[in-house]
Amino acid sequence: MGSNVKAIVCHDTHANGGWKMESVDVREPGEGELLVEMVASGVCHTDALVGGLPSGAVPIAFYPRVLGHEGSGYVKSVGSGVTVAQPGDPVLLSFAFCDKCEICRAGHHSNCNDFYELNFGGPYKTFGLASKSGEPEISGAFFGQSSFANFSIVRQCSVVNAKDLVRSKEELQLFAPLGCGIQTGSGTVINSAQATEKDVIVIMGLGGVGLSAIMAAKIAGCQTIIGLDRIESRLKLATELGATHVIDGSKLGDKSLGDAIREVTDGIGPSITIDTSGAPPLIKAGIEFTRNSGKFIQVGSAPFDYNLEINMSTFMVTGKQIIAAVEGQAYPPEFVPKMVQWYREGKFPIDKLTKFMPADDFEQALKEMHDGTTVKPILCWS
Amino acid sequence: MGSNVKAIVCHDTHANGGWKMESVDVREPGEGELLVEMVASGVCHTDALVGGLPSGAVPIAFYPRVLGHEGSGYVKSVGSGVTVAQPGDPVLLSFAFCDKCEICRAGHHSNCNDFYELNFGGPYKTFGLASKSGEPEISGAFFGQSSFANFSIVRQCSVVNAKDLVRSKEELQLFAPLGCGIQTGSGTVINSAQATEKDVIVIMGLGGVGLSAIMAAKIAGCQTIIGLDRIESRLKLATELGATHVIDGSKLGDKSLGDAIREVTDGIGPSITIDTSGAPPLIKAGIEFTRNSGKFIQVGSAPFDYNLEINMSTFMVTGKQIIAAVEGQAYPPEFVPKMVQWYREGKFPIDKLTKFMPADDFEQALKEMHDGTTVKPILCWS
Repeated sequence: MGSNVKAIVCHDTHANGGWKMESVDVREPGEGELLVEMVASGVCHTDALVGGLPSGAVPIAFYPRVLGHEGSGYVKSVGSGVTVAQPGDPVLLSFAFCDKCEICRAGHHSNCNDFYELNFGGPYKTFGLASKSGEPEISGAFFGQSSFANFSIVRQCSVVNAKDLVRSKEELQLFAPLGCGIQTGSGTVINSAQATEKDVIVIMGLGGVGLSAIMAAKIAGCQTIIGLDRIESRLKLATELGATHVIDGSKLGDKSLGDAIREVTDGIGPSITIDTSGAPPLIKAGIEFTRNSGKFIQVGSAPFDYNLEINMSTFMVTGKQIIAAVEGQAYPPEFVPKMVQWYREGKFPIDKLTKFMPADDFEQALKEMHDGTTVKPILCWS
Repeated sequence: MGSNVKAIVCHDTHANGGWKMESVDVREPGEGELLVEMVASGVCHTDALVGGLPSGAVPIAFYPRVLGHEGSGYVKSVGSGVTVAQPGDPVLLSFAFCDKCEICRAGHHSNCNDFYELNFGGPYKTFGLASKSGEPEISGAFFGQSSFANFSIVRQCSVVNAKDLVRSKEELQLFAPLGCGIQTGSGTVINSAQATEKDVIVIMGLGGVGLSAIMAAKIAGCQTIIGLDRIESRLKLATELGATHVIDGSKLGDKSLGDAIREVTDGIGPSITIDTSGAPPLIKAGIEFTRNSGKFIQVGSAPFDYNLEINMSTFMVTGKQIIAAVEGQAYPPEFVPKMVQWYREGKFPIDKLTKFMPADDFEQALKEMHDGTTVKPILCWS
């Protein structure tokens, strides 16, 4: 491809200064692969999490690699066997799945038996350093896409053809994060929780996932929608987006979180609790304060070494459900168009969460995501 | 009531010889209560569990009391405010619930906020020793009924009016266990798991609850039905009732239970696992071998001090659900008639599980239930 290809290459953890924008080469697409010219890629905490793991700490921690998994762009060329899109088509990218195992065949693609390997695994050599005459040595295919590059090789399974969905390049950029964070939050409410107007819902952690859950809870008509975070601007935004109550976790004082939740739920707790934080104390509290027969849904990534302890004798009598949800249990070719439709109907104002930034400013984007200034940075490649 | 009233009074644990058939008096029914002349009471492991707890070991361990919670009989008289039945009506008895809390109002009566207190708590003084001129000192209201007595005071919530359901006293006796064990097993498959013909189901523990789950899985049309136990006669009965595969847990040799299950499920495990055993190693194995996006449902009572440990990071990616189920998430006034209907249609041959025994032989009934000779003993009071 020559020297017009550039990517954020992770040579080591971000903390060690290992992420660098570099000129690279990208190989040709093989069977079932597409070469996509990215226009945008949302930044997600999972990028920071994986690119913050010391090499070898866990099997998915290796370098060099290109991350990014909320990409959008235009197809440049396709390998053999590709039917999902043609050169020139706009595409929105999502997670990877095998589409062959029993789990995929039953419609649960986000719990594919090979999910971990296909989305986090590798190395899958995709990019080469231009300075080293381009021999592929840098891993791609993160979530089937590695969209932190202006050109990348994408697996067919990760592609949602957007030719009938978007009206402009700007929309294609705005919709980039639909394929992961926004789908995860809203899909959890709609698909996993199957929330209705009878439900009282608590959403813990109001980043991109949590705020998308708030919007979906409003679409589902939940009678009470409670958002929890420690950042005032996010609590304010949650209220704008549909939360009926917000709780600032940094201002509980002597009150327990459970007591604070019970205060706004007539003493009985929510029928649905969604944890997007992955923070052990919130997980523990959430399972406890969810009402009997209610659903506790884990969405945030907990620390790798965190073991939840549940007294099974006590738990059984409650009739509660502990549900693990990945990517909002969504099938992107069906769920992404649904989100676009909500956006067009004015019910899903994702533009209130996003901020466009030049891809070269990725360090600033990460900083703003971490300190909460920006909920969902979108890196623009053109 | 005079000296024609008798009850199995627990003065201490069964192991200490504390259970005795005795002449007692029973007080008059108060508001919302009925005096029922029992014709039968099923024996369930929960009776043995509660009547095996040393006094004071946990808040629900106290004596003297009358247990029994799968009763059936005829109403003799009613207290004020009773609308569910009239004197002379045949009744089938089930668990107690408040019918007022938010959980009951949402239709989840078996997860009533007061379930534990109403079914296990007390003391609720109901019976007196005839030899001590009958002053009520012995606790009743176990599961709202304390049906280990030929006359007992029953709470209105525990009553299913059977006047349009049963055709004879013998049927009323046969249907006694519908209100707990049989409802728990079949309700878990129908209500909690919502099993369909697409499901591959494993049922661990083939007592009354497990075998009822097998029958319900067949009614639901599950494509594969796997029963696990260590008693050969139960495995044989499971096959008669609809299991497509049975596994003898005592004959695994070097094979892990997970491997044995995967062998009969094309390597991918069941979509639904129900544990009726409460045994920690089975619970742990069951959560592990349930396929991604599958449901693990806890029905058996685990030891009071057993804490399940789950690595939340690993668990999340699986999309599995851990569901606590009580009484098959059934609402007895609706679910008991459904079971009777299945029985009449020949799909629910509960008579293959049951054995009628005179109430005086309760020691023999307990022995046969524990050693597995009899799945569901029914004590007959007349």
